[in-house]
Amino acid sequence: MLKIALAQINTTVGDFAGNANLILDYMARAKRAKARLVVFPELAVCGYPPEDLLLKKHFVENNLKTLSALAKKVHGVSAVVGFVDADSKGKIYNAAAFINEGVIKAVYRKNELPNYGVFDEKRYFQPGRFEAHSGVATIEGRKIGLSICEDIWIDTGVYAKQAKAGAKILVNLSASPYEVGKLKVRHDLLSRRAKETKTTVVYCNLVGGQDELVFDGASMVFSPQGKLLARARQFEEELLVCDVDAKENPIAPILEETQEIYQALVVGTRDYVQKNGFTKVALGLSGGIDSALVAVIAVDALTAENVTAISMPSRFNAKATRQDARVVAKNLGIEFKEIPIQAIHNVYLRILRKHFNRLAPNIAEENLQARIRGNLLMAFSNKFGWLVLTTGNKSEMAVGYCTLYGDMSGGFAPLKDIFKTKAYTLARWRNAQQRTTLIPKSVFLRAPTAELRANQTDEESLGAYEQLDGVLASYVQAHQSLGSIAKDSAQLPYVKKTINLVDKNEYKRRQGPPGVKITARAFGRDWRLPITNKYKE
Amino acid sequence: MLKIALAQINTTVGDFAGNANLILDYMARAKRAKARLVVFPELAVCGYPPEDLLLKKHFVENNLKTLSALAKKVHGVSAVVGFVDADSKGKIYNAAAFINEGVIKAVYRKNELPNYGVFDEKRYFQPGRFEAHSGVATIEGRKIGLSICEDIWIDTGVYAKQAKAGAKILVNLSASPYEVGKLKVRHDLLSRRAKETKTTVVYCNLVGGQDELVFDGASMVFSPQGKLLARARQFEEELLVCDVDAKENPIAPILEETQEIYQALVVGTRDYVQKNGFTKVALGLSGGIDSALVAVIAVDALTAENVTAISMPSRFNAKATRQDARVVAKNLGIEFKEIPIQAIHNVYLRILRKHFNRLAPNIAEENLQARIRGNLLMAFSNKFGWLVLTTGNKSEMAVGYCTLYGDMSGGFAPLKDIFKTKAYTLARWRNAQQRTTLIPKSVFLRAPTAELRANQTDEESLGAYEQLDGVLASYVQAHQSLGSIAKDSAQLPYVKKTINLVDKNEYKRRQGPPGVKITARAFGRDWRLPITNKYKE
Repeated sequence: MLKIALAQINTTVGDFAGNANLILDYMARAKRAKARLVVFPELAVCGYPPEDLLLKKHFVENNLKTLSALAKKVHGVSAVVGFVDADSKGKIYNAAAFINEGVIKAVYRKNELPNYGVFDEKRYFQPGRFEAHSGVATIEGRKIGLSICEDIWIDTGVYAKQAKAGAKILVNLSASPYEVGKLKVRHDLLSRRAKETKTTVVYCNLVGGQDELVFDGASMVFSPQGKLLARARQFEEELLVCDVDAKENPIAPILEETQEIYQALVVGTRDYVQKNGFTKVALGLSGGIDSALVAVIAVDALTAENVTAISMPSRFNAKATRQDARVVAKNLGIEFKEIPIQAIHNVYLRILRKHFNRLAPNIAEENLQARIRGNLLMAFSNKFGWLVLTTGNKSEMAVGYCTLYGDMSGGFAPLKDIFKTKAYTLARWRNAQQRTTLIPKSVFLRAPTAELRANQTDEESLGAYEQLDGVLASYVQAHQSLGSIAKDSAQLPYVKKTINLVDKNEYKRRQGPPGVKITARAFGRDWRLPITNKYKE
Repeated sequence: MLKIALAQINTTVGDFAGNANLILDYMARAKRAKARLVVFPELAVCGYPPEDLLLKKHFVENNLKTLSALAKKVHGVSAVVGFVDADSKGKIYNAAAFINEGVIKAVYRKNELPNYGVFDEKRYFQPGRFEAHSGVATIEGRKIGLSICEDIWIDTGVYAKQAKAGAKILVNLSASPYEVGKLKVRHDLLSRRAKETKTTVVYCNLVGGQDELVFDGASMVFSPQGKLLARARQFEEELLVCDVDAKENPIAPILEETQEIYQALVVGTRDYVQKNGFTKVALGLSGGIDSALVAVIAVDALTAENVTAISMPSRFNAKATRQDARVVAKNLGIEFKEIPIQAIHNVYLRILRKHFNRLAPNIAEENLQARIRGNLLMAFSNKFGWLVLTTGNKSEMAVGYCTLYGDMSGGFAPLKDIFKTKAYTLARWRNAQQRTTLIPKSVFLRAPTAELRANQTDEESLGAYEQLDGVLASYVQAHQSLGSIAKDSAQLPYVKKTINLVDKNEYKRRQGPPGVKITARAFGRDWRLPITNKYKE
């Protein structure tokens, strides 16, 4: 019998005291559970990813001091803790400390530094160099090999060398951000590594939200035969205790895809709001699908008493839409305010009339309505300290079908990485989770519209959402070219128009709020396109 | 006699046709000037930095095709052209082609990839490997060694090996963004390299703006004794022709620091506006120093007929301020509109009153005024296709003394990297450049104020700007700690309050428009701090 505890914790970047307390708490729990080793996620001491905080020397020093103080308190259970190591020249390393009875017995420095997608680790860290027995320690007479995240993804990496050096248990500290479908990839990889090396693989992942990233947990242990021995829950803190010699260990079920995405949005929203010191949120509730979905997410994340919905109709908003907004709020039990904006819009129009040289109404007058709504929401934010959630989705953000400083105003965008078609799926799924209706049927049936002018529909401007999201999946997610997306010359004009919209709206995205990343290419740190860009393919 | 031409050109990212034409044009000019070799800047074919466009395979292919087509047109002069090279596995390289009589004779791949500051080259490129004679070609019987930007900054790098292999001329293709004081650093480095290797050093830099970066040109040639032989102008396109054997070559004078910064702002603003397809700009002109300075920069960048200034007074704006706005516009000969916002503000206040529960007026009411102004500017932008310039400075952006979706609304922020104290210096310098006054004395004498409530002054909220900018220089520019900035316990509360403002306003900066970078740490790609961050030191 050898019990190993995987402390799947939700750290906060820069919160040394908080993270240390969390680590000590889980250490004590691991000890009580008679574990001999407790493993924490990557960079647990300082939180992940610390980004440019790593360029501050005192940040690194604080982290080292925190680790030293922690180490002294390790008794009765060994621990592997992620931290930032530094050498005498001030070079820093993404590292793991193996601590036993108050002493740091070994330090492993991450060899493989990811520098793609959202990752910039080569900006900060030096790679560790694998030498004989790097990161190999002993527990209960069994050799364990330590590695960090990316290390285990690279074929024949350090983990293989550690196994050759006699390690029977490979421990990997990870901070792997959630993406749709990634859990299966991780599962298959770890199982393969266990089989390749004939070792037990212990994989401890981070959980919780940090800006745009949500770490989904689901820490796992695999037997030397590649069989899943234990798994922690997704999206929740957990101390997973696994007896690597036993046949029965806890294996949390996994969520199906829609539920998984929904949960990522809930956790990402909750952690952004709460870790940034907010309790309450406000959002503009239009009666459309996106804002209804964001309202439900907000309630699931923060409870109904912390959510205020504001409907801000103009003369272009249909009675039915307004009514739907009211019904959604009522169904959710959240505070609801209706503030018509026509009077404000009218004053703007009157004042601007003489400056607009009798030009026909256009997007100028339309966008003003969205901006008045943004102003009102921000006024509530400034008055009551509420964080404003924006309700736009990824399809809109991609083609710029949203108003900068209007509906884009807010601190966090839960649907930033959710295509419109996926928003419907999520709303339908969430509705089906309980007997009482949350989002009324009429919201699903109505043609999506911004209601900024009479008889406007999104799909008139953008094409059917099925078609739009298809092109966006190819262009944005897969970086495909105009020529390869348009299957024939008939499609060419539509595809060309769409990708042109994506390119020319880069300036809007650059000023958009952060939101939850759920794909391999969200509009965040993983999307670094120039604004000034004449490439049209 | 050996004439080498340095084609200091202003490329545009993604504009293959445009860049190719520019290259051919300069090639023809070099030929007419009887140069034997013409050197172009780093990645001249695709523009610099292409960022995530490099992740698109077809982008790389377009660049290769452009290079091939170009190469066929090289006759009568040899050329060194920067482009993206690709190997059979699809790995890409930041490269330089040496082209002679229609044939690519040699390709050099950059060895040293910068991955700090604004640079993410390891995200995209593989490093080239130096092998015997890498990047060595022959011209007129003299061996030349090719290297790219960072390569020459690393001691005993490829340039040293090329010199050992017999190179007599070291050619470096560069795209080095402007920063205050960097020209001297480059000069000293290149002079030292020439002396170390006893070779002629030919350094061709890019010129012009690309999003937040301004490349300042000032291409240079140094003799084997380390003496400056020739230098191109700063901030302008130029074909610098240098006979490396002659005693006399053109050496452009260098600008003094304030003029240099001012020129960077002008070029950065002009290129952002024009490369993004705009002709005209609008800005809110308050009567304060920042907006006056931005108006002058805009006129210098785009000429007076392309600039519209809008003054949007509320009841808190003093008559004198309003008058100053009018005078600045008149002095500059730009279109001027005055649109009082009180009527709009009043409607908002009336409508919000019942929702605000008799709470005392606070930042909610104040910020509404800034947001109304933002809305009006954006209405003009939407109506007439003008790009809005924001007028905020770096001191404000640092501590969040600006209104998100208010005065932060706009496409480009010329003063984004200019501290308030520096804004005064620039304005004073610009005023001194001509006999007629541009910015009246009263603008300099008035205590800076946002005028969002009665009797407000910036310095009451933030401390004296001299003091504030000092703390910001330490905290933002130098990443110093609270403890090291506060010289004694008396200073501690002020420093603590200030750095706390910097940290908690990260969310605003994340949604701010791009602006010209002039320091080593601007609030752009070189500033990657998390929003969710509990570190307080």
